[in-house]
Amino acid sequence: MDALLFDGALRLAHDYPAPALAPGEALIRPHLAGICNTDLEITRGYMGFRGVLGHEFVGTVVACDDAAWLGRRVVGEINAACLRCPTCLRGDQPHCPERTTLGIDRRDGAMAELVSLPISCLHEVPPGVPDEAAVFVEPLAAALEILEQSHLRPSERVAVVGDGKLGAMIVQVLRLTGCDVTLVGRHPERWALFRAQAIRCARPDEVVGRFDLVVDCTGQPAGLATARRLLRPRGRLVLKSTFNAPSELNLTMLVVDEITLVGSRCGPFAPALRLLERGLIATEPLISARYPLHDGLAAFAASVGQMKVLLMIGAPAR
Amino acid sequence: MDALLFDGALRLAHDYPAPALAPGEALIRPHLAGICNTDLEITRGYMGFRGVLGHEFVGTVVACDDAAWLGRRVVGEINAACLRCPTCLRGDQPHCPERTTLGIDRRDGAMAELVSLPISCLHEVPPGVPDEAAVFVEPLAAALEILEQSHLRPSERVAVVGDGKLGAMIVQVLRLTGCDVTLVGRHPERWALFRAQAIRCARPDEVVGRFDLVVDCTGQPAGLATARRLLRPRGRLVLKSTFNAPSELNLTMLVVDEITLVGSRCGPFAPALRLLERGLIATEPLISARYPLHDGLAAFAASVGQMKVLLMIGAPAR
Repeated sequence: MDALLFDGALRLAHDYPAPALAPGEALIRPHLAGICNTDLEITRGYMGFRGVLGHEFVGTVVACDDAAWLGRRVVGEINAACLRCPTCLRGDQPHCPERTTLGIDRRDGAMAELVSLPISCLHEVPPGVPDEAAVFVEPLAAALEILEQSHLRPSERVAVVGDGKLGAMIVQVLRLTGCDVTLVGRHPERWALFRAQAIRCARPDEVVGRFDLVVDCTGQPAGLATARRLLRPRGRLVLKSTFNAPSELNLTMLVVDEITLVGSRCGPFAPALRLLERGLIATEPLISARYPLHDGLAAFAASVGQMKVLLMIGAPAR
Repeated sequence: MDALLFDGALRLAHDYPAPALAPGEALIRPHLAGICNTDLEITRGYMGFRGVLGHEFVGTVVACDDAAWLGRRVVGEINAACLRCPTCLRGDQPHCPERTTLGIDRRDGAMAELVSLPISCLHEVPPGVPDEAAVFVEPLAAALEILEQSHLRPSERVAVVGDGKLGAMIVQVLRLTGCDVTLVGRHPERWALFRAQAIRCARPDEVVGRFDLVVDCTGQPAGLATARRLLRPRGRLVLKSTFNAPSELNLTMLVVDEITLVGSRCGPFAPALRLLERGLIATEPLISARYPLHDGLAAFAASVGQMKVLLMIGAPAR
């Protein structure tokens, strides 16, 4: 089958072996896959991953032991857990030490004609959510994870540092709480969408005051430094960036200012689908470009510094 | 007056000017002062402090505009806040940006014959709490701050990394929650007290399993690394160490494991006094030595690597 691989270099294979149907898993024909900054990081060595890329997708189940899933349109959680270890039995499957992760860690991803995932990872997409919105469920769930981890009061002041793909999901989710949100970034050309949603946008040097909660989703040490600067004493700093570089943070000042640092990764799919179904999250304006799978190398090249680039795989008409 | 100073070097002054009575403040004659690791760090350059050392004390009010305080036996919170700024008006006086800090930042400390503090910082010591227990209120309050910041469930597993002065307060407080506590340290000669309180004690390489909450109070980068290693995914790492050295932490792994890092500093005095009054915290076994103020240099030298060394200043009979 056709598949977009990273095996030390990014390349398109035409003869990649299709996955076999494994017990408890489903084979899915992806319609669309999104390119995420983590994909770009992987092509720079992050996680040492080798295999098919892609962890943001929407597709149709084409094979499965449980016939009830056949033909359903699905999105999939990316962590394939063992479901048996103490971590899983505590309900924390995304942190299973035995887990593989779709297109990130020892599991082939969705930028291919077929992908396999455990049935327990699948979520059916409601009819009212089109493919081009459903493909955003994974990063939208990651944005919602902030609210799973922290109680954000409607009266609080929040800054989201980073106006890229993930920042666009996070500000849209956090604005729903009623809190005072500022998006801090360096790309004013992207801000029209957010300003239309009554989200304040500013460059780092334009932001005044201190915030109760600050999210860093820049993927850059400089972004983390900005986020830290904007935080009030006893504030919460949410780390959404995984980056392939060491980062220094003055830990003594974290103690003196009693800062809480919250590492935040994958989130819940069900509420992400509900928000999309309710029309509360804009996705269409975030799509920079669409490429067929066989132009995957061009798609990755075009993705650097852009908003969401989609790969069209087995996509039905939108 | 006699005072133990740091002015680039630690020295004992006999002609240091006594503080004048300032509006809203009280003059206190310290009975005892405790030497803390922060005092040792200050003599190595931490905070760039110059002045009289000492922020753990118990004493008697000898001058005050409010006559009701005269003659009372008190301990004092160390952050002298402005009480007018937005941070103070939010109730967060310990983080007032204008604050001075007793014996740490622009305010002379308690290792002298007289010390001045705002009345708003004072807490009367109940008759049942002797001076040699009351002098532990400040570090005991710092231990309680962990429970002000985090909900610790009685069923959770906790590790306290660091069996020094502060660790001794922290394990004693956390054991009161009913949680499963392990003290991790390198000084087995200190563990008899803790074992008598049914606290498990172990060296870093003897500890098995992962913990829900880990406290680092070692003041050492190696201790922080141990604390991180003992933490389960989604666990909470409480930072109690201020140290005068950079420390690296893999922030990407904090994100992947969704760790919450909690900087923790000063805590509430009133519950600390209640715990002492109820006899729930052992302090007597933690006292390594007692020196008169005029032997302060010897006391500091003896304090390195020891538990609590007390300076006797205007101490009445115990």
